[in-house]
Amino acid sequence: MDPQMIKSIVDEVVLHLNQEEKSKPSVPIGVSARHAHLSKEHLAALFGNGYELTKKADLSQPGQFAANETVLIVGPRGSIERVRILGPVRGATQVEVSITDSVKLGVQAPLRESGDTQGSAPVTIVGPKGSIHVSEGLIIAHAHIHMTPEDAAQFGVENGEVVQVKTKGKRAVTFENVLIRVSERYKLEMHIDTDEANAALLKTGDNGNLIKLTDTKGLR
Amino acid sequence: MDPQMIKSIVDEVVLHLNQEEKSKPSVPIGVSARHAHLSKEHLAALFGNGYELTKKADLSQPGQFAANETVLIVGPRGSIERVRILGPVRGATQVEVSITDSVKLGVQAPLRESGDTQGSAPVTIVGPKGSIHVSEGLIIAHAHIHMTPEDAAQFGVENGEVVQVKTKGKRAVTFENVLIRVSERYKLEMHIDTDEANAALLKTGDNGNLIKLTDTKGLR
Repeated sequence: MDPQMIKSIVDEVVLHLNQEEKSKPSVPIGVSARHAHLSKEHLAALFGNGYELTKKADLSQPGQFAANETVLIVGPRGSIERVRILGPVRGATQVEVSITDSVKLGVQAPLRESGDTQGSAPVTIVGPKGSIHVSEGLIIAHAHIHMTPEDAAQFGVENGEVVQVKTKGKRAVTFENVLIRVSERYKLEMHIDTDEANAALLKTGDNGNLIKLTDTKGLR
Repeated sequence: MDPQMIKSIVDEVVLHLNQEEKSKPSVPIGVSARHAHLSKEHLAALFGNGYELTKKADLSQPGQFAANETVLIVGPRGSIERVRILGPVRGATQVEVSITDSVKLGVQAPLRESGDTQGSAPVTIVGPKGSIHVSEGLIIAHAHIHMTPEDAAQFGVENGEVVQVKTKGKRAVTFENVLIRVSERYKLEMHIDTDEANAALLKTGDNGNLIKLTDTKGLR
């Protein structure tokens, strides 16, 4: 084949790749600080029988809120004060911390999807009316994107799929393993923890570009 | 051109790109915890006239060492104890912290290359024989790779160039802006801070793959 034709083809392929890069959909990013979800029983044990959480602020996900109430969490090596409770109450208690926090507590918490607390790390939780010790429930949250079925259809992804998200700025990174979570109850937002935010110089309201992987399903 | 031929050419190009992906050179990663480099004058002010640092352990970079001596660093909102001094003494005092640390200190330290402290953040440093306040010197270190001229030639990169480094594992990331630093005095190692290590689940001794950018020179 003549060299000029080869060059045209290469230019065409490169142009195509660049266009793909530009067409990546943008996803808003939310940074999750350490927080606790409590079961009804544990809320009662910590704050008194019949206690109800009071709302401090709505969260981005519909129906979810940051409560005025906070707890102290304790591990074998240290404790962290004023850990925000997120409402409403859930079926099972779950405390989400960063790796930085887990080092301070002195416990090796596993990287997990929200809700997957079986065999995760133990933690002691202290409230104004009592304390509890749970043998599992402390996790590092896996980066994920909440979206509606409409968003998923538009992006061509599905629940449980893993995608890349590329960020911008001086500390730009590509998060290689980001889990897609689809529900009618969700609003489009990628959730990362404070370690990930600091490492990438990100704050809530920044954006990343979703890049679909061609050969992956489930966490790698 | 016939569509079948176009398809063969595109397949060939994609195959080529995939092979490139596999041939990326591996770079060992070192995680830098917060630390201080002190000038001779500041060492004297903090530890006494004529004081010499004592070696606790050699670092990966030839001639560099972790000293037994530590200092307290103080910001407007908080302090951090037992910050390791790295030796030998330098021309100018420089304290490198993570963003997590800077939040604790209550100061916005800029993301900088080592040595570029002009206009960086102030910090108070306290030693056993005295304390100093520097109006600049506190930085967040930019991710970088130390290498020899021989490494640089082998990887096809040069001093000051920016590359990507892709890591592996459950929290795999691609660091998009990694600075190449070349010197005969260096040993091949990528340096990241504790926030970056936590966000990517990395520890000293892990490896990343260096990916050369085609169109970039200097920090983006």
